[in-house]
Amino acid sequence: MRILHHLPLSPFARKVRLVLAEKRLPFELKLERTWERRPEYLAMNPAGTVPTLVEENGLVVPHSNAICEYLDEAYPDISLIGRTLAERAEIRAVTAWFDERFATEVSRNLLYEKVMKPAAKRGAPDPSRIRDGYAALRAHLGHIGFLAERRKYLAGANLSLADFAAAAHLSALDFIGDIDWSVNPAAREWYARIKSRPAFRPLLNDRVSGFTPPPHYADLDF
Amino acid sequence: MRILHHLPLSPFARKVRLVLAEKRLPFELKLERTWERRPEYLAMNPAGTVPTLVEENGLVVPHSNAICEYLDEAYPDISLIGRTLAERAEIRAVTAWFDERFATEVSRNLLYEKVMKPAAKRGAPDPSRIRDGYAALRAHLGHIGFLAERRKYLAGANLSLADFAAAAHLSALDFIGDIDWSVNPAAREWYARIKSRPAFRPLLNDRVSGFTPPPHYADLDF
Repeated sequence: MRILHHLPLSPFARKVRLVLAEKRLPFELKLERTWERRPEYLAMNPAGTVPTLVEENGLVVPHSNAICEYLDEAYPDISLIGRTLAERAEIRAVTAWFDERFATEVSRNLLYEKVMKPAAKRGAPDPSRIRDGYAALRAHLGHIGFLAERRKYLAGANLSLADFAAAAHLSALDFIGDIDWSVNPAAREWYARIKSRPAFRPLLNDRVSGFTPPPHYADLDF
Repeated sequence: MRILHHLPLSPFARKVRLVLAEKRLPFELKLERTWERRPEYLAMNPAGTVPTLVEENGLVVPHSNAICEYLDEAYPDISLIGRTLAERAEIRAVTAWFDERFATEVSRNLLYEKVMKPAAKRGAPDPSRIRDGYAALRAHLGHIGFLAERRKYLAGANLSLADFAAAAHLSALDFIGDIDWSVNPAAREWYARIKSRPAFRPLLNDRVSGFTPPPHYADLDF
């Protein structure tokens, strides 16, 4: 069986879970406590991050971007990286926006401080980072709403990896109750559409010790 | 003419310059002072980072990963992302190591603090970051040497995007005199090979106001 090494609230692992589910590729999740830095795991993924994909034939693919590009090449029937060169460029650029910019400005400040740091016993959350994270989240929801008002999906007319990259971050933040959806109705409407996809369901059933998601987390008509 | 918007010491722009030159695709460089946040530039690249590629047909591709993937798809004769799925996965994972890990631990602490911060008038370099940057650089040179002792190139038997990603960071650091090549002979030998390629020559002729590269910077037998 295909294995995905993950942490339940890792946005990068969530992005790959969404891609695998959308492509209807069965897989088994394995929890990897990255802060333990297990030698067996580091041998597969020297960066020690999640996710890492292990195919049934033994192929090991570390890093969420390498995994998503691999999956689109190996299983092209349901493509999530577009058809034309222009579509593909736009999807990759918007995906990178969420994987880098959103990740650094929002997820690093909120998810890392509130979830990873305590789990890895690396001290108390830093209030100034959390404040920065909330401010950036508001701005990013505005940007998502801006895109969603102009396009059906975040990188164009079709559902793509960019939507899953954004939704992966948002779903993890929503799980810890950090999103005020009233801030931007267009962003909320786009997220409701992505969240209603069958591929999303397993994420909504996640349970993480120490956290109770808000009532709207798994509600499709939130 | 194809245009690449860049900063001379941006490792991400340097990576794309190496890819364009290796593929023998002519282009013109345009300097973009990203800290000025020109509205015309932000319209092409909302993240406001360099590089951004503008093709002769008007196609705009922001973000170095989106550009490199685009170039390999649009001009596949000289491919830099491998042939088999396994090769491609490894090349993308090693490239991501340098674009993310090396960038955060080394280039962010040295190039940003010493070059970008003064240029953007964002205050004095932070000595603790510079110290962290040098320590991380030593460790990363060790890792590069480790790879170079086991493989001809960093991601396998063939020259790839991973070599250019690594060499782009190292070349910018070498320009500001931050690399002690005696630390790791295997890393040095690999870098000498990459540096000798014709694609590298334009980088060695770069001039940046306020910086005089060390004598070995443009020396192929350094």
